[in-house]
Amino acid sequence: MRVLGVDPGLTRCGVGVVEGVAGRPLTLLGVGVVRTPVDAELSHRLVAIEQGVEAWLDEHRPELVAVERVFSQHNVRTVMGTAQASAVAMLCAARRGIPVALHTPSEVKASVTGSGRADKAQVGAMVTRLLRLDAPPKPADAADALALAICHIWRAPAQNRLQQAVALHTTKGRTG
Amino acid sequence: MRVLGVDPGLTRCGVGVVEGVAGRPLTLLGVGVVRTPVDAELSHRLVAIEQGVEAWLDEHRPELVAVERVFSQHNVRTVMGTAQASAVAMLCAARRGIPVALHTPSEVKASVTGSGRADKAQVGAMVTRLLRLDAPPKPADAADALALAICHIWRAPAQNRLQQAVALHTTKGRTG
Repeated sequence: MRVLGVDPGLTRCGVGVVEGVAGRPLTLLGVGVVRTPVDAELSHRLVAIEQGVEAWLDEHRPELVAVERVFSQHNVRTVMGTAQASAVAMLCAARRGIPVALHTPSEVKASVTGSGRADKAQVGAMVTRLLRLDAPPKPADAADALALAICHIWRAPAQNRLQQAVALHTTKGRTG
Repeated sequence: MRVLGVDPGLTRCGVGVVEGVAGRPLTLLGVGVVRTPVDAELSHRLVAIEQGVEAWLDEHRPELVAVERVFSQHNVRTVMGTAQASAVAMLCAARRGIPVALHTPSEVKASVTGSGRADKAQVGAMVTRLLRLDAPPKPADAADALALAICHIWRAPAQNRLQQAVALHTTKGRTG
């Protein structure tokens, strides 16, 4: 399974592509950051993010895009931009027919470090180890994007089983 | 000047096209709502909003798109969806090279009613009067989209003069 992880942001949007299945060694296919100028108009920044995400989708053809679920408990100014950048990433994937999965920051941290409260350094260290890199990807947004992709690959089997169970139950309920 | 006003929302995204210049009677060219199903996946709702906004841009070819500036003091769950819907509207306009202007709800209310604290009914009543309609456009999101377009048409002359003054000052500062 090939997953593009997106850590959304207007100034730095982390992107990382990981391939693998749960229980096997993972492969890093690409990692980077889509940047937009802080002093540019918001609408132009969104266009730049769209172009950046499109280029990553074109190059890596992921089967799924995992995006960080944005919460509003953070800094109020930042969170609006994060929500808007995440909307562009989701839009780019969905209109190509690529499924989008959302994971919360604590799900991602718990997935790769074992603790939902792990700090950036710990996430970076585990991403480095799991992908057998020489050093943590910089900036942190790039490492976070990889952690999102890894989180999805590892959670996917359980989520798929759950969805199948729900679907089966719903069908039974409707026909019974 | 032909302006498409967008009152962003995931469930109901108000859209309205008004043509005119400050100081002359205004013309309503179209008004409606782009709706997306509440139970659809977020990424699919964003695609539906993109398709809806694109259809309005295709049909009316506005010179400018005026979008409500989203604030975070409102309901936290709603505001994230509003921010994401507004991102899609801004993106659609900007990638066609159409300028985007943001106006706050109180700027819009003050523009059309004289008070930044006017309620929905008052805004609806003034939109009805200014566009010489028989009844207020329904739902309120549609009326709000028209109010945004009117607000922009009326504020544009002052904003343009201000931008020209700033540009002149900046040029002088650089060359002097």
